[in-house]
Amino acid sequence: MSEHSSSNDHEPKLFETIHTLRAMRRLKPDPVPPELLKKVLAAGVCAPSGQNTQPWAFVVLRSAETKLFFGTRYLSAMRKAFGDRLRLSADDLSANARTLRAAYHLAEHMHEAPLILLVCGRRDWPFAVPAEKRVGKAPPSYGSVYPCVQNILLACRGLGLAASLTTLHQLFDDELCAQLEIPAEYGIVSAIPIGYPAGKFGPVSRQDPVSVTYFDRWGAL
Amino acid sequence: MSEHSSSNDHEPKLFETIHTLRAMRRLKPDPVPPELLKKVLAAGVCAPSGQNTQPWAFVVLRSAETKLFFGTRYLSAMRKAFGDRLRLSADDLSANARTLRAAYHLAEHMHEAPLILLVCGRRDWPFAVPAEKRVGKAPPSYGSVYPCVQNILLACRGLGLAASLTTLHQLFDDELCAQLEIPAEYGIVSAIPIGYPAGKFGPVSRQDPVSVTYFDRWGAL
Repeated sequence: MSEHSSSNDHEPKLFETIHTLRAMRRLKPDPVPPELLKKVLAAGVCAPSGQNTQPWAFVVLRSAETKLFFGTRYLSAMRKAFGDRLRLSADDLSANARTLRAAYHLAEHMHEAPLILLVCGRRDWPFAVPAEKRVGKAPPSYGSVYPCVQNILLACRGLGLAASLTTLHQLFDDELCAQLEIPAEYGIVSAIPIGYPAGKFGPVSRQDPVSVTYFDRWGAL
Repeated sequence: MSEHSSSNDHEPKLFETIHTLRAMRRLKPDPVPPELLKKVLAAGVCAPSGQNTQPWAFVVLRSAETKLFFGTRYLSAMRKAFGDRLRLSADDLSANARTLRAAYHLAEHMHEAPLILLVCGRRDWPFAVPAEKRVGKAPPSYGSVYPCVQNILLACRGLGLAASLTTLHQLFDDELCAQLEIPAEYGIVSAIPIGYPAGKFGPVSRQDPVSVTYFDRWGAL
């Protein structure tokens, strides 16, 4: 693993990490050292949560068998969600086409990811849902779990690990929760394949925040 | 503002920032320089979003009038949500009691915050919601907007600014959206009061992530 160690020799910088974080969907097969996974999860649990309830939990898929179970269903979900849009011309070099190709590559190789981190959240009705509408299962606490997810992605980037935020497991959520014996009071919020990057962290394209910032009233500059 | 400038003299470190980020609910009245707000929002828009749709927008409350509009209703919402639990004994030094006192202090002084940043998200049904259940307004894209919120909180911490993630505006959301002329296709996800901290960034208490980490199946170590 010596080729990877240089990324841990210095303390990564906050803004540089934030500005160079991007979804990395092509992973090397090299294993992720357990001490790096610990650092990633320790960053995750530093996230804020409503009244500090810390409603997250992690299921790390690392056996070939569970990764294959997940990967097979994830690829089917990808085909179901994107269908014909996956028949992309290799000539289409638009950002959308490149992202979709990378997402499809990820789906086809999901089972080969060194780790697939499932970030779970305790189910809890948001303030806004009145009592009479609280029917069936509450959703997981997105407002607490997604900040944890972002800390995880930033920590991966800081440690030189490739990761990407996926949510397509929602299309086979019941089957996945049953297989992994997730208790009814938790839900899976995101699945994050993690490994060393095959390729470089390329540039990140984002709009200028000024174009979506208003003062005191929508539309006012 | 010279007393604050030292926090910008060095590039903040990623893991130190993640591990020392905490809700800071007591703010000085000193204004937040516009260039710092720009850095904070530039960090926000670096967050990942589904198919890079970047579905966020920001409404910054900075006029006394709109802050008072927001603060008055926020305090009422706090009383409604927490009711009798706000009559806390000053002797109760438990973590919960201290957090609730600070949250109540924030509510009473919300209108005095130098800035109140409303982070909005375009409404979009998640994959998991089948067509027949897509009734009424879709929720804002939590999965894209909360990572942006976490980047904003980390950027504030890195710049020496105090901030905290609040969601109680949900209890007066319709009135707030009408007042601020938020278009129907957007929703307000979080309100973040921002200013210089009155006091120090104290320690952060979190569980050991090992206690909520399983491998290949819930409960398996």
